[in-house]
Amino acid sequence: MVRWFWQRRTPGRVLHLRSRGEVGDATRVDFAELAPDVSTFLGQAAYLQLGYFETLSELIASTPELAKKEALSRAAGAALTKHQDIVALIRERGDDPTAVMLPFREELDAFRRATHGVRPQETLLSVHITAGMLDDFYYALATSYGDTGRRVARILQGDDDREAIVDILTDAIAADEQWRSLLALWGRRLVGDTLLIARSALQGSLGEAEEKRVEPVFTELMGAHARRMDAMGLAA
Amino acid sequence: MVRWFWQRRTPGRVLHLRSRGEVGDATRVDFAELAPDVSTFLGQAAYLQLGYFETLSELIASTPELAKKEALSRAAGAALTKHQDIVALIRERGDDPTAVMLPFREELDAFRRATHGVRPQETLLSVHITAGMLDDFYYALATSYGDTGRRVARILQGDDDREAIVDILTDAIAADEQWRSLLALWGRRLVGDTLLIARSALQGSLGEAEEKRVEPVFTELMGAHARRMDAMGLAA
Repeated sequence: MVRWFWQRRTPGRVLHLRSRGEVGDATRVDFAELAPDVSTFLGQAAYLQLGYFETLSELIASTPELAKKEALSRAAGAALTKHQDIVALIRERGDDPTAVMLPFREELDAFRRATHGVRPQETLLSVHITAGMLDDFYYALATSYGDTGRRVARILQGDDDREAIVDILTDAIAADEQWRSLLALWGRRLVGDTLLIARSALQGSLGEAEEKRVEPVFTELMGAHARRMDAMGLAA
Repeated sequence: MVRWFWQRRTPGRVLHLRSRGEVGDATRVDFAELAPDVSTFLGQAAYLQLGYFETLSELIASTPELAKKEALSRAAGAALTKHQDIVALIRERGDDPTAVMLPFREELDAFRRATHGVRPQETLLSVHITAGMLDDFYYALATSYGDTGRRVARILQGDDDREAIVDILTDAIAADEQWRSLLALWGRRLVGDTLLIARSALQGSLGEAEEKRVEPVFTELMGAHARRMDAMGLAA
């Protein structure tokens, strides 16, 4: 049986993903050497938000109920705002946003396709779970980039307006109990892919020492993920 | 041959669509009696912006070039912001945004479908033309609603970020001259539908006296439309 590194117990020092607003130091120090260069970081972070926006827009188009459309449009707008704010930051640094995002397009598009479910509820859960984990992850990474990083952290901290997604999913579960196991299953499937995307953002291949260092961060990502699932009554 | 009322010469007093920021009075006075009740006004204005957002989102999804996707996402975001700002205003007034928008769904969805072209360039032109004309029209109507109207006027005045659309269209024309006549034709087809939507927003059926009163407003809408087409090198 494969045991992913984030499933192992960590006897050593535990690094923390800072809670929003808190100025951490442990994570920053440990991430600094593993963090990709700042263009890579910005390009990925910007392109991910564009992807959430696109997925949510597709869901809006296929949602018949106007009230849900309306609610989802807030989540889509929040992702778009984050995307545009990061793009503005890239431009301010004198880079071309398209050129900075393009190298990650293929991998992140494939990831996004893989998170599309057969039913809209699954795809909604995908956005909530993957954006939740990856926003946390890029927020932690941001500490490695000085002032630019602080500005990205502030952007990622912005309201994500995803409560509507949680409402739609809990309504679905309340209306038909079968959704509970179906969505729990789907959630589990998403976690592996999402953590791989987070991990692939780090520099090159990780030795045992580096793995040990990032392990606690992934453990915290998993913890936050479990809390998100729990809030919808879903087993993580 | 049918002669639409906006094609006739107007010998009488000319009412002006106020240029943005200018406080007009003639238009306000004349519109007041014809203007629909404020809920209708807000519901239509909000739903129209949601429609522009949806159409632009669909275009983003089907656009392969990342730079264009990126540029269109700004226009989509601007429409979404306007939609959300008007929705917030409806909510502030104690109304349910969905209930306020629903009565206009069928007609405005049918209008939106009719503005979808076979090619993305046509649909892009549709957004530019219809949103351009109808934003102007609702901006003029807004003067009939006191403080609420002033707030809607400010929202509609916000940046629409549609320069990207103009760039994409002028590039298409520059690359292949055939686009010029095709898009000019498409633009002409759009004008009739768009003016009918604007007209149907006014109270009941218009007598000859009322028609005379709104005529100059429609003449100005046509003038602004012609300038928009001209800016892209297209005959109006």
